[in-house]
Amino acid sequence: MPLMKSWVTSANDAAHPFPLNNLPYGVFSTAGTEERCGVAIGDMILDLYAAEEAGLVAVSDSPVFDVPYWNDFMDLGSEAWKALRARLIEILAEGSADRAAAEACLVPMAEATLHMPVAVSEYTDFYAGRHHAFNVGTMFRGPENALPPNWLHIPIGYNGRASSVYVSGTEVRRPWGQLKGPNDEMPRWAPSARFDIELEMGAIVGTASDRPITVQEADDNIFGYVLLNDWSARDIQAWEYQPLGPFQAKATATSISPWIVTKAALEPFRCDTPEREFELLDHIKDCGPMLYDIDLEVTLAPEGKPATTIARTNYNEMYYSAAQQLAHHSTAGSPMNVGDLLGSGTISGPEKQNRGSLLELSWGGKEPLTLDTGEARSFIADGDTLTLIGNARGDGFTIGFGDCVGTLLPALEDPYAR
Amino acid sequence: MPLMKSWVTSANDAAHPFPLNNLPYGVFSTAGTEERCGVAIGDMILDLYAAEEAGLVAVSDSPVFDVPYWNDFMDLGSEAWKALRARLIEILAEGSADRAAAEACLVPMAEATLHMPVAVSEYTDFYAGRHHAFNVGTMFRGPENALPPNWLHIPIGYNGRASSVYVSGTEVRRPWGQLKGPNDEMPRWAPSARFDIELEMGAIVGTASDRPITVQEADDNIFGYVLLNDWSARDIQAWEYQPLGPFQAKATATSISPWIVTKAALEPFRCDTPEREFELLDHIKDCGPMLYDIDLEVTLAPEGKPATTIARTNYNEMYYSAAQQLAHHSTAGSPMNVGDLLGSGTISGPEKQNRGSLLELSWGGKEPLTLDTGEARSFIADGDTLTLIGNARGDGFTIGFGDCVGTLLPALEDPYAR
Repeated sequence: MPLMKSWVTSANDAAHPFPLNNLPYGVFSTAGTEERCGVAIGDMILDLYAAEEAGLVAVSDSPVFDVPYWNDFMDLGSEAWKALRARLIEILAEGSADRAAAEACLVPMAEATLHMPVAVSEYTDFYAGRHHAFNVGTMFRGPENALPPNWLHIPIGYNGRASSVYVSGTEVRRPWGQLKGPNDEMPRWAPSARFDIELEMGAIVGTASDRPITVQEADDNIFGYVLLNDWSARDIQAWEYQPLGPFQAKATATSISPWIVTKAALEPFRCDTPEREFELLDHIKDCGPMLYDIDLEVTLAPEGKPATTIARTNYNEMYYSAAQQLAHHSTAGSPMNVGDLLGSGTISGPEKQNRGSLLELSWGGKEPLTLDTGEARSFIADGDTLTLIGNARGDGFTIGFGDCVGTLLPALEDPYAR
Repeated sequence: MPLMKSWVTSANDAAHPFPLNNLPYGVFSTAGTEERCGVAIGDMILDLYAAEEAGLVAVSDSPVFDVPYWNDFMDLGSEAWKALRARLIEILAEGSADRAAAEACLVPMAEATLHMPVAVSEYTDFYAGRHHAFNVGTMFRGPENALPPNWLHIPIGYNGRASSVYVSGTEVRRPWGQLKGPNDEMPRWAPSARFDIELEMGAIVGTASDRPITVQEADDNIFGYVLLNDWSARDIQAWEYQPLGPFQAKATATSISPWIVTKAALEPFRCDTPEREFELLDHIKDCGPMLYDIDLEVTLAPEGKPATTIARTNYNEMYYSAAQQLAHHSTAGSPMNVGDLLGSGTISGPEKQNRGSLLELSWGGKEPLTLDTGEARSFIADGDTLTLIGNARGDGFTIGFGDCVGTLLPALEDPYAR
């Protein structure tokens, strides 16, 4: 599939993240307008509430784009998803008869503030990148016992905290927590000194289910994808995580990129999961290519200084797809809802420069990174800005995600000092 | 505090769970009315939407009781909580001038269907009962290593699945899952054969927070308590829970009792947490009596047969209070929302008959229970009805919770059979 041309000419650059082939969905506001749904096209946003009011798009009897989330639209079902995408392509394509009417609904992205594109119902995070699991397991248990025995048979996941999922650009405050180092006799209360990122993709559930679903059904139920940074306090995690898993270590913040890239836009980039060491049981068996070839990158910029790329990897490094994770999530009967967010797990590749967390990049702090500025980093320093970047690269076009950015603010004064 | 007398005379029995001292909040419907908020008094429910319409209660400029959850009312804040309770006592007390008007708003409980009293925002479950943690740890690691090193320093918790929290009476379907017994070479897909209960209390957050809060603030933010059954598939759990904690094992269902017993009703029953082995750090240090003396009981009735009491314990056996759990939950900065539900963790006492799960009662299946019917049970059989019962016993009155009941249905046919 080649680049599809739009009369919004900024969208026609082979390197632009938001060509007509993409059409990612977000929520925005401007000085003069409240939060509402919009679609990115080149350097502009098509105001879908305005387009709905003008009769340019009509997906439902009542307005669905005048709200600060895509949940209501997702709830209309996959036929509506297809119809909207087809109509938007019609409106925005070169030579469209609707150009004049649509131009009246365009807002320059530079004048917009982006908000959370989805009201997150519940948030689940997985641990489904093999290189990451192997690296972390090796650090904690040695290479022979690196992968837990269940890892090659089920996508290991845990429920996270939906209330602290934030849109890109939201600053993140270094948390305090209870810590106990290997040489400490007793735990102590201190700001996290090993605050980290995890480079992930997030899948957004667009169709609800209330029974165990197949991998194909799960794939059908996914609406789209975002970049996801699972901020992690490694020192809080080390002390708290046995026996019931990470809790406060992952509660401070999860950042997502502002645009939902739809499954439809990613179709040309589908690729297979890796060969299986053990055949998967039926409930999570692959039913076709269900990963995506998406280049991923992480940059770190100390306060007021230029950014260094600290990792490059690809979403196709995952062992389990989001569809397999969602199918597994449904097996015990729990309803899955529109707006549920599933983190992929950290996406590391085979080489050192492919590692999606500072924990792995600095090998637990033993091998600090040297940034282009000459500074060293084992974990995140106050003022550092971390940026996740994602691009699926087609033949003459790019499907971009919009960066997922967060700056770490210093810890507050001790909130419990007397 | 003695029994407060009501003109609803069924409420004046020393053993009745819903005297004027209690006034628990629920959501109900009848053949002729949609779901709405109500308060239990004796064998009746005061329809609060009707009372609001009639001008008997006025807590807000717009109606708050015409919805199927208490979240909107909780959101009004603790002054409104106090005002409503005071007004309800005034209306329902013996000799009330409002009796005639209130009588028109009464519905016999026998004619009502009870629904979820709260829209659960997020659900967190803890592991804060010392006897339970010791018993389970002993089974898995031996008595010397029974308690994890962190256990006496922080309330261990994990995020659960809010979408599968159900009101008492909802039937529970035995789940399928991926299982691997100690003698199995490979995992297999099968219905859970070790399906269990966990006897817990649930605390409902009534005031939101967006920063680390103190234990006193956390206590202030709790609206009330329910009984909670954390249904658990032990065989799914054993295979999946390392390293990130329970996931599908706890996803099938969590049942809660239908009435929120307010913190105000429980005030006379406050009691101290146990003596501490290690002094707790400031962020979770006790600030007064914050457990409650509530007798708890579990019964098991095979299909069509009478129930056997299989456990008796008391909420005062907990090591950490709900306020300490909520304070700990807030430490990393995650917002806590109105409608968040916090499970206490399984409440076991020191003796065998005080154990709050079949896992403990049958010691991992090695010592099956004998029911009064003569049948044996290690875990739950299809058709069994499990009932949690809670009563705080005052001087001539009882604060009851309304039973938390669930019947186990047989597993579905294999949802993935081809």
